[in-house]
Amino acid sequence: MNIILASTSTLFGEQYLEYLKPELIKLYEGITEIIFIPFARPGGMSHEDYTQKAKDFFSSININIKGLHEFEDKVEAVNSAQGFFTGGGNTFLLVKTLHELGLMKVLKENIESEKPYLGCSAGSNIGGVNMKTTNDMPIVYPPSFDCMELVPFNINPHYLDPNPEIKHNGETRETRIKEFLTQNDIKVVGLREGNWIRRIGNRVTTEGTELTRIFEKGKDPYEVDPGTEL
Amino acid sequence: MNIILASTSTLFGEQYLEYLKPELIKLYEGITEIIFIPFARPGGMSHEDYTQKAKDFFSSININIKGLHEFEDKVEAVNSAQGFFTGGGNTFLLVKTLHELGLMKVLKENIESEKPYLGCSAGSNIGGVNMKTTNDMPIVYPPSFDCMELVPFNINPHYLDPNPEIKHNGETRETRIKEFLTQNDIKVVGLREGNWIRRIGNRVTTEGTELTRIFEKGKDPYEVDPGTEL
Repeated sequence: MNIILASTSTLFGEQYLEYLKPELIKLYEGITEIIFIPFARPGGMSHEDYTQKAKDFFSSININIKGLHEFEDKVEAVNSAQGFFTGGGNTFLLVKTLHELGLMKVLKENIESEKPYLGCSAGSNIGGVNMKTTNDMPIVYPPSFDCMELVPFNINPHYLDPNPEIKHNGETRETRIKEFLTQNDIKVVGLREGNWIRRIGNRVTTEGTELTRIFEKGKDPYEVDPGTEL
Repeated sequence: MNIILASTSTLFGEQYLEYLKPELIKLYEGITEIIFIPFARPGGMSHEDYTQKAKDFFSSININIKGLHEFEDKVEAVNSAQGFFTGGGNTFLLVKTLHELGLMKVLKENIESEKPYLGCSAGSNIGGVNMKTTNDMPIVYPPSFDCMELVPFNINPHYLDPNPEIKHNGETRETRIKEFLTQNDIKVVGLREGNWIRRIGNRVTTEGTELTRIFEKGKDPYEVDPGTEL
């Protein structure tokens, strides 16, 4: 496999995908066109507007973008594609749409046969075992929470450390992930913004500028440096 | 009906349920014992420990507590109860458990026949139309997101205003609720901590110390004062 699963598309104060540009040039080497999967619809934006946003960035690295919503036969479109990018937004909406269109398995098979894949945020969640560690609101009911399992763990994107100054009784991210581990025995990778998972062949590493926080059942959470093999 | 749906059980720096004590004395007037529903299991704590926590508070207002997990025939226990309290925790775990045990409808019917009900956080979410505006992580897959619809809207507990100082790309609460409204036409009541919904008979009001933020499809969000009829 040849994939990037990123915590976020956009760093604070920066342009869309700008911080990943050198990595994306390598990921998509030799590729002239990829399919963009806009189904997570951040803020409820249209498939068309979201695809245009991806187009605007990818034209800067000479890659053409087609939105998956544009194809009548979407299974055929995925099977014919050179590579993929799934944008962030609402993971429930993304997973529901992929399952209902019968695309989750087809996309997985195409990525497992070496087509490059980039996921950001919700697009990274679907690279995990299931979507049970998303941060998103369950605005729609998917027929299943199962995802592509491109890596043997779950991802928590936009991982956020507890802020001791907040006088608010909502759960911290760490509390939520620990609750997940009371019900599931799946490793969770807390990806801070600025970090991503890189898989090349069978080698899976954490990359980026920040430490990555790992949660496993029956262990205290621990931190790993960029470049650590998972 | 005679119900309270509260944003949170505990205000910052206070004891469990302390701020609601005068309201709870009125809610449960004439009642000597209620059933506590511990299935949301905050932080993964056991049903026993969670029920003990509720017991410790309710003994101070002379109400005995039985945990619903203690009964072999839980439907019969609900039908025989004088009143109910559902504690907070993980809404997915709570809703999954209630549906699997066939209790969602039984609990609804008992509350509709005038038995007093208190819900906090996840326990308030289940008083809404569905659980699609919970803040919780989807750590388990419920057979349905439908809830009791004790009020004709959805609740977002622990409602939190956007913090312009946060340099983080996760969605704000307002963005999430607006995404919900792109997919659903159900009013959402953003309950800040310190606020609750009170229903007596057919009269539904917001109560507490804070303004309440209301979201409706096709309208700008707006604020209402404590005491406003919804």
